[in-house]
Amino acid sequence: MELIFLGTGAGVPAKQRNVSALALDLSNERGTTWLFDCGEATQHQILHTTIKPRKIEKIFITHLHGDHIFGLPGFLGSRSFQDGTDTLTVYGPNGIKEFIEVSLRVSCTHLKYPLEIVEINEGVIFEDEQFLVEAKKLEHGIVCYGYRIIEKDLKGSLQVEKLKALGIPPGPIYKKLKDGKTVTLDDGTILHGADFVGADKPGRKLAIVGDTRISKKAIELALDVDVLVHEATFGKEDQIIAHNYYHSTTEQAAYVAKEANVKKLILNHLSSRYQGEDLNQLLIEAQQIFPNVFIAFDFYRHEITRK
Amino acid sequence: MELIFLGTGAGVPAKQRNVSALALDLSNERGTTWLFDCGEATQHQILHTTIKPRKIEKIFITHLHGDHIFGLPGFLGSRSFQDGTDTLTVYGPNGIKEFIEVSLRVSCTHLKYPLEIVEINEGVIFEDEQFLVEAKKLEHGIVCYGYRIIEKDLKGSLQVEKLKALGIPPGPIYKKLKDGKTVTLDDGTILHGADFVGADKPGRKLAIVGDTRISKKAIELALDVDVLVHEATFGKEDQIIAHNYYHSTTEQAAYVAKEANVKKLILNHLSSRYQGEDLNQLLIEAQQIFPNVFIAFDFYRHEITRK
Ligand SMILES: [Zn+2]
Ligand SMILES: [Zn+2]
Repeated sequence: MELIFLGTGAGVPAKQRNVSALALDLSNERGTTWLFDCGEATQHQILHTTIKPRKIEKIFITHLHGDHIFGLPGFLGSRSFQDGTDTLTVYGPNGIKEFIEVSLRVSCTHLKYPLEIVEINEGVIFEDEQFLVEAKKLEHGIVCYGYRIIEKDLKGSLQVEKLKALGIPPGPIYKKLKDGKTVTLDDGTILHGADFVGADKPGRKLAIVGDTRISKKAIELALDVDVLVHEATFGKEDQIIAHNYYHSTTEQAAYVAKEANVKKLILNHLSSRYQGEDLNQLLIEAQQIFPNVFIAFDFYRHEITRK
Repeated sequence: MELIFLGTGAGVPAKQRNVSALALDLSNERGTTWLFDCGEATQHQILHTTIKPRKIEKIFITHLHGDHIFGLPGFLGSRSFQDGTDTLTVYGPNGIKEFIEVSLRVSCTHLKYPLEIVEINEGVIFEDEQFLVEAKKLEHGIVCYGYRIIEKDLKGSLQVEKLKALGIPPGPIYKKLKDGKTVTLDDGTILHGADFVGADKPGRKLAIVGDTRISKKAIELALDVDVLVHEATFGKEDQIIAHNYYHSTTEQAAYVAKEANVKKLILNHLSSRYQGEDLNQLLIEAQQIFPNVFIAFDFYRHEITRK
């Protein structure tokens, strides 16, 4: 499980930072990659990574501002051209369906894979046996979602050696014990599954917070996560500008991280006005409130390891 | 007057060639730049040139395939963000208006400049005292236009020294003579404007031919032009593929150049399957039919000088 930052800038593309896109590489977990936002030239950024468009399974859009969605039509078309055949699901606010459908229709783009577009509301928007994704509305002038991604705990594995030592040969009993059941042997011996199954491995949790003013919802999304990716469009001295444009400062993002008790904070969506040395200053501002913080850059990779 | 190739690839972006966009720098002629097609990440390519988005006055779209239009919404938004205030006119096939309007509306992009969208038919689509632009339909499966751009002849300048030598002082007479009129002086001398005005400087002509099979209309558009930019998606051995996908080969583009009696041919819109040495082969194929030919690459600039 690795975050790959594809676009870490705000509003318009700059030489150093492209507009928004963030990949969550789940190759090891489910053989796919998820994408959060898809600004213009996201497919171009992907050309410089190991990400395969046909392996992208889900795209979560935070909001409909152009710097977060204008790369979608091109990406969807290229994924088809590059022989993607698995279903792709796009989640996003109302309007995302119209944008995609009109773009594909006008351009005569015919996809060779099934495309599902889900216009979401707050709540659990995806759940299977491995993952759960929850969306909450942030504060950005237009509808903007933040996402909380929860990996479910991995069940502990069966302690086969211990069973063999007791002289119990492999068979249907093993399956029952692994499922936590109690089994009575022919000789009357009672075996409790719990005694033969190792401890659960806790799943990982992360929060990806789209464009927003400082927001209580962001704190809720980020509660106790391993990694919080939070926008920090401005430095602390531009707090009024940040407020007026529905964005956050470095300090505010750090405050959210602290309140939510996260393990690590990654600042994202930086205005291109900050370059070189400025970034040190932004980092210091955030560190004074929340020490374990990092400022993302395009192509930065952050692995999220299991505990 | 200079052509600046921003994207010279076909279909999908590749590391070496972006999708279609071609700028015609008219800084010296009218203080603006025109753009032909606007594939995804055209605004990113522009970041690496001297082109100023706010100086782009007109965008001519050849056809609505994604690799020719998906950069439009982002470009239009960024031009506004970067303080463009002059009117921008987009010319293109039916459907271009819906694509632009839906993209801007869904993304809440509010432009600070007037945007005109003109859905065109064949014929003269723009004319002023300097330039005339004519569109013709090519053969590409969907409606696709080629453009012929004609710079009008520059009127010869008044030979002031000659008039002064005859003892005629500057005044309203000069204006009349310059306009080609005949003037009778107080002493009865008759002066013909034609005798005091230098020869006209012929305007330049170019043709930009979008995606197409080999087409008579392309020959008509290119008749006697200084520069023909023609697509050459495939090499000559892939003539059947080219036909099936409504594209041209190197040889076919060269044939059009020869039939149209153009001065120079620039091959554009190359499939990314051709790299390095392959390109030499493509060039040789074209040269065997039309010697003055060049294969465009991203950021290639070609100045079109006056005769
Ligand atoms: Zn936004
Ligand atoms: Zn095309």
